[in-house]
Amino acid sequence: MPSSTADILAQLTGLVGPAAVIGAPEQMGNYLNEPRKRFHKGAVAVVLPSSVAEVQAIVRWANEHGVGLIPQGGNTGLVGAQVPLRGDEVIISLTRLDTIRSVDPAAGTMTAEAGVILENAHKAAEAQGTIFPLWLASQGSARVGGLLSSNAGGVNVLTYGNARELTMGVEAVLADGRLYQGLNSLKKDNTGYDLKDLLVGAEGTLGIITAATLKLFPKPEDYETCIVNIASPDAARTLFQLLRERLGGRLNAFEIVPALGLDMQLRHAMLDRDPTAGPSPWYALIEISRMAGGQAGLLQAAIETAFERQLIDNAVLAESLSDRTRMWAFREQMSEVQSKEGASIKHDVSVPIAAVPQLIAEGSAAAERLFPGIRPVPFGHMGDGNIHFNFSQPVGADPKTFMAQADEKLHEAIYEIVLKLGGSVSAEHGIGQLKIDLLRQVKDPVALDMMRAIKTALDPRNILNPGKMLP
Amino acid sequence: MPSSTADILAQLTGLVGPAAVIGAPEQMGNYLNEPRKRFHKGAVAVVLPSSVAEVQAIVRWANEHGVGLIPQGGNTGLVGAQVPLRGDEVIISLTRLDTIRSVDPAAGTMTAEAGVILENAHKAAEAQGTIFPLWLASQGSARVGGLLSSNAGGVNVLTYGNARELTMGVEAVLADGRLYQGLNSLKKDNTGYDLKDLLVGAEGTLGIITAATLKLFPKPEDYETCIVNIASPDAARTLFQLLRERLGGRLNAFEIVPALGLDMQLRHAMLDRDPTAGPSPWYALIEISRMAGGQAGLLQAAIETAFERQLIDNAVLAESLSDRTRMWAFREQMSEVQSKEGASIKHDVSVPIAAVPQLIAEGSAAAERLFPGIRPVPFGHMGDGNIHFNFSQPVGADPKTFMAQADEKLHEAIYEIVLKLGGSVSAEHGIGQLKIDLLRQVKDPVALDMMRAIKTALDPRNILNPGKMLP
Repeated sequence: MPSSTADILAQLTGLVGPAAVIGAPEQMGNYLNEPRKRFHKGAVAVVLPSSVAEVQAIVRWANEHGVGLIPQGGNTGLVGAQVPLRGDEVIISLTRLDTIRSVDPAAGTMTAEAGVILENAHKAAEAQGTIFPLWLASQGSARVGGLLSSNAGGVNVLTYGNARELTMGVEAVLADGRLYQGLNSLKKDNTGYDLKDLLVGAEGTLGIITAATLKLFPKPEDYETCIVNIASPDAARTLFQLLRERLGGRLNAFEIVPALGLDMQLRHAMLDRDPTAGPSPWYALIEISRMAGGQAGLLQAAIETAFERQLIDNAVLAESLSDRTRMWAFREQMSEVQSKEGASIKHDVSVPIAAVPQLIAEGSAAAERLFPGIRPVPFGHMGDGNIHFNFSQPVGADPKTFMAQADEKLHEAIYEIVLKLGGSVSAEHGIGQLKIDLLRQVKDPVALDMMRAIKTALDPRNILNPGKMLP
Repeated sequence: MPSSTADILAQLTGLVGPAAVIGAPEQMGNYLNEPRKRFHKGAVAVVLPSSVAEVQAIVRWANEHGVGLIPQGGNTGLVGAQVPLRGDEVIISLTRLDTIRSVDPAAGTMTAEAGVILENAHKAAEAQGTIFPLWLASQGSARVGGLLSSNAGGVNVLTYGNARELTMGVEAVLADGRLYQGLNSLKKDNTGYDLKDLLVGAEGTLGIITAATLKLFPKPEDYETCIVNIASPDAARTLFQLLRERLGGRLNAFEIVPALGLDMQLRHAMLDRDPTAGPSPWYALIEISRMAGGQAGLLQAAIETAFERQLIDNAVLAESLSDRTRMWAFREQMSEVQSKEGASIKHDVSVPIAAVPQLIAEGSAAAERLFPGIRPVPFGHMGDGNIHFNFSQPVGADPKTFMAQADEKLHEAIYEIVLKLGGSVSAEHGIGQLKIDLLRQVKDPVALDMMRAIKTALDPRNILNPGKMLP
């Protein structure tokens, strides 16, 4: 490594100019402060390349000097992958690589650089009559490179898949500074190992994604959206099965929220009015899309069948765009509202869909046994088996005391149930630094060895996001 | 390596018993003779393990002694991945691992061992009211392990994706004999590198797949199928675009066949009657599926719009299962019929969908310039940009002379056009040994280096299908 911070700053400045290097800690706030404020290490520098060639130059330099690089996009990740772990790393921010290189609606592709904000990718797709169907709460700040590196999910995975499935090819700078030119617009290409899917979801540990070819889809003519009142997760599971049989790939979203989620949002005036049909133990937000010329009213017809089978108690269909927006706000504000209710403990987990009711029942019971009065708020992507199994502190408890007592124990209890059910301890947020120890405990050691072998093969000096993802 | 064939046979027999080892060359026919009879090297032995533990024992032994192992399933591959390259390898046939371990229609998953024949997987899925939507001409003999290792495509990729996208997890024996236990039924799991997608499509060079968790889908209530008469690939492209906008994910198949394909099949009495609406330069076979409760007649309505826009000249809708079967036979018999028309030269290529007409026009013209009288028969998965760009010899030419003169030159001409259009020289059949030299010429050298680094990391003694896939 260069002998001092001053050396590093001087050398980086030599590569990309003074306007692209931040060395003063007090100017690094935007790059260090991640959403949940869990990680507090500083960085030696933040460097902001403006071109792929500059990224290559920086990586080549880092590899030569053994300097750890942390690729960063919109800094919205929830597991600390994009912020320092040791304190001696350089953050390489991709925010200036924000060109949408091409949009080709006929081919159904967009090529976007790593720094493109998701919402801008949405707009560019929609300007051409298409959609890029990766939708999630942080889309106003999350950027393409980070979304791909974390294999982001979101609310439309049922129909369109997660970030990996929405990506046709990537361009990435490898540890030695060479450029992997894997952009492509081919639906089929069996000429070698699947390097694209290896780089997607690798949290920047195998290469720095600089651009990607993304899949675009025809814009639906309309959406049909509803919130149904439902007695239990078990009934939700049966309803999901029915809808999947009736609607196949047109079922875009099936999200559940417990009564407490609505209570909290109404109490904190986060909704202008109740988007549901009235009090219920659980709600399911369901959405389907209709293509041009397609049949209208399919969701309503399916919901009527569900009534006949006594799967649901009540329902309300969105009758306007503002209804739909309010329904989705109700779902998307679930994370935010918890921060207004004191301390919370979160688990981004998945299980086979059939096991979701058991997960929620056993997890809630275990939490109540450990910490009487704790408030379970499991919500999210029931249709993917992916529940954000969150807990709010008991009313009136001291947040710090609660966290000190509950954090570790509750994690252990929930993850034990998840693993018993054949589930995953990180369904969509990844590993980063938050879940490194957990991964060591739960992951098949053979898989970990394969990961290590691949990491060593592609980044022998361990300069790409060192210490992240791999225990 | 053990010093002699006799040693190898003795040691293998010690591992799995005499009934599971074939040493006599005259008994190896089923394992050596691949569909196109292009590869003619013998093997030292064929070994037929009956359990995962036996596969592990064989691989451990091979790794210790530096013996090359060739994993083989139904022996239907078209690029020689599953047959010997050098002659000193042992074929490890997975045919006896043919248990369907579980079918779970509620979770939408099936766990099948590598040796399960695709058609049996279809039947097991359908017995539970679901489908496993990987359909291709060789489904009566192709097996799960080979289908995954070659990332097979088939006729329903538009809706359901190829083998990679249809696989949720794999179990595989690694080069050191350890078992990677990657079976899972999770729709979302971001706990590490995407090892599943690395093993799928690796042609057995990184591990031997022993089982897989496959995705099942609700069985459509009905299909709507038609063949349209269409003037040109360009009109077909426009029609595809229209249908995609109208039908979204319900459009299951969009296959094209030129007039010559129909002529040949009628001439050789491979169809009991003409499945089309009459003579046309090109035909498109189009199919959509309808879920329970869904609207009927959607395909007809879309086809009527295409008439109004003068995109098509005539069309016939399947009115019975036998109509549908005949239409599909017409498409599926395209490879077979060519063998009745003398020598043929084949290219399994893909380009961005928008470029398919240009590929067909330029490729046909180049072939005619090189070999007047040659008969282009480009057909296949237009909706995936994946054309089987085949050529039959001129009528009356001597097959051997034609192959000797044309094979190399025609490959060069076609691949040059494919690469110019940003395409792939192997869309779905893979690399094996057939396209090794080609891959060296056309693949990004950085990607090849990444592949080599991964191969060396996971199979340091190069015992897993040595010499295949990687130049």
